[in-house]
Amino acid sequence: MTSPSPTTPVDLEDVRAAARRLDGLAHRTRVLTSRTLNALTGAEVHAKAECDQRTGSFKFRGACNALASLDAEDRARGVAAFSSGNHAQAVALAARLHEVPATILMPADAPPAKIAATRSYGAEVVTYDRYAEDREALGRRLAEERGLTLIPPFDHPAVIAGQGTVALELHEEVGDLDVLLVCVGGGGLIAGCATAATALLPEVRVIGAEPAVRDVTRRSLAVGERLRAEVPRTIADGQQVPSPGALTFPVLQRCVEDVVLVTDDELIDTMALLFERLKVVVEPSGAAALAAALAGRLDLRGLRVGVTLSGGNVGLDRFAALMERRGWGLPDVIGAAAP
Amino acid sequence: MTSPSPTTPVDLEDVRAAARRLDGLAHRTRVLTSRTLNALTGAEVHAKAECDQRTGSFKFRGACNALASLDAEDRARGVAAFSSGNHAQAVALAARLHEVPATILMPADAPPAKIAATRSYGAEVVTYDRYAEDREALGRRLAEERGLTLIPPFDHPAVIAGQGTVALELHEEVGDLDVLLVCVGGGGLIAGCATAATALLPEVRVIGAEPAVRDVTRRSLAVGERLRAEVPRTIADGQQVPSPGALTFPVLQRCVEDVVLVTDDELIDTMALLFERLKVVVEPSGAAALAAALAGRLDLRGLRVGVTLSGGNVGLDRFAALMERRGWGLPDVIGAAAP
Repeated sequence: MTSPSPTTPVDLEDVRAAARRLDGLAHRTRVLTSRTLNALTGAEVHAKAECDQRTGSFKFRGACNALASLDAEDRARGVAAFSSGNHAQAVALAARLHEVPATILMPADAPPAKIAATRSYGAEVVTYDRYAEDREALGRRLAEERGLTLIPPFDHPAVIAGQGTVALELHEEVGDLDVLLVCVGGGGLIAGCATAATALLPEVRVIGAEPAVRDVTRRSLAVGERLRAEVPRTIADGQQVPSPGALTFPVLQRCVEDVVLVTDDELIDTMALLFERLKVVVEPSGAAALAAALAGRLDLRGLRVGVTLSGGNVGLDRFAALMERRGWGLPDVIGAAAP
Repeated sequence: MTSPSPTTPVDLEDVRAAARRLDGLAHRTRVLTSRTLNALTGAEVHAKAECDQRTGSFKFRGACNALASLDAEDRARGVAAFSSGNHAQAVALAARLHEVPATILMPADAPPAKIAATRSYGAEVVTYDRYAEDREALGRRLAEERGLTLIPPFDHPAVIAGQGTVALELHEEVGDLDVLLVCVGGGGLIAGCATAATALLPEVRVIGAEPAVRDVTRRSLAVGERLRAEVPRTIADGQQVPSPGALTFPVLQRCVEDVVLVTDDELIDTMALLFERLKVVVEPSGAAALAAALAGRLDLRGLRVGVTLSGGNVGLDRFAALMERRGWGLPDVIGAAAP
């Protein structure tokens, strides 16, 4: 890393170095366009489809860059991560590709499919009781006992730089953008993307999107310090993070113009639109940035707008249940196929 | 067209010429691979994602090539098509891109979304009562009265050559294939793909996939003549064609090794798998070729297998209803997101 500092954990060169490390390992994902999205927003929308990334989300980029940045000794000892979601699978696959042993700490009641997916990438999964045990303390103890390097989900320079390659590729593909909309959880993706985008396009407005019931990033930015929220109940499980990161928050203060709130209903409707019109499967958090563009709280008319579709890991069961909640999906349509 | 004849309506050069005409107009779609698909089949599966094609299916290729092949006089008078499905939208968009007026004959009770989509591409939609009127006679009369050129959905050399570009691109992308699995309705896609594939790879086995309740192609090939079936009730609306085409059938006789039958349940399960593992939305007909690979009726172990995912035009309502029919999608999962 060049010149890591509290307010500048990474710079454009770090993101470029990450892109070189990811070359051949991460997918260079599509940038989707759609007449419908343009008509609904009045903008020219360019959506970066990280739902097609390996392991189903942008998280693979950061994990892969972090793994690639380890020295030989750390590699030999192995890595650890705690996550029940996309970060777990991302670290598991990144570790396998770098031939590094991985231990993933997951709650015992995590969806069996997610535990199985993480194991299938070759990681050792250690489960814990999420109601009785402190995940972070457990993770740290495990890492210490075994000499493992902990790969945090967002608050790490190599992770932030890796996520920034999303914006780098988007810029390479579509050139100038007036606005870049990015979903916000711990802030790894938006910090990396904002770093790259503002360096490449000094005039670009980077805007975050977070669940309305959470809004801890928006409030933290308003008061100028990292607030801590109860983990909110939102369908956007990828954004259920109690606080912005220590490393990511200063980047957001410097590079992010605003954070827009989106409701769970808006996330579901955006998922439905993406399914019907773009034939892509996006998880709730993954729809947040586009939902912000569609919600009408930003005037995007006539602008060139980049949007991250950050992940696609939503099971069919959950997808169907979410659609039903909004009245999408009517069983009486069975058999009504037009010949 | 070079040397059109009853048994060879198109050859590899026609497909290559179609590819040049489609360049810049049709999407060069992705070829998807998946560890899961490989594990389930024992093969190395390369799936051509025509669900991402413009208008949502491979039909755009054939329609676009047919439009590009018209002379100036025919262009000025305009084209017609009768279809309630993917061919309608394909002809509508292809005509708009070639600045040719298009008239599409659709049943009055076709899904309003499909009529709206066809209109949105700039076509004039003429509706008819499918229970009282003969679509083909009506279409021919309309074409005669207005001097329009009818673009048939499959039985036309330029349409067949256009569909063949699917196999051409697949071969360019992945090289040798042992088996190519293609869904069969009227036979336009498989005739074009078989023409290209067998010319490029003399050893390749081209195998069709059709709904088990229909099986008119399989039976026609068995007896050596084009049988006619009642339009069968299958969820695979893209394959509800009563008979193989006059032009396509001889190509199938010459180039297609076998036709495998797939059940509606197998189509739904394949759609569910594609949703969950590859994050892509595929309509029932579009899942037929992969369903055939997964159904275990072919021994594909150790082989390199190309598969067409031929379209993605399934509305969310219908998708949810189909999933429910097989028990995929359980409402009690709501809110069970892992933090």
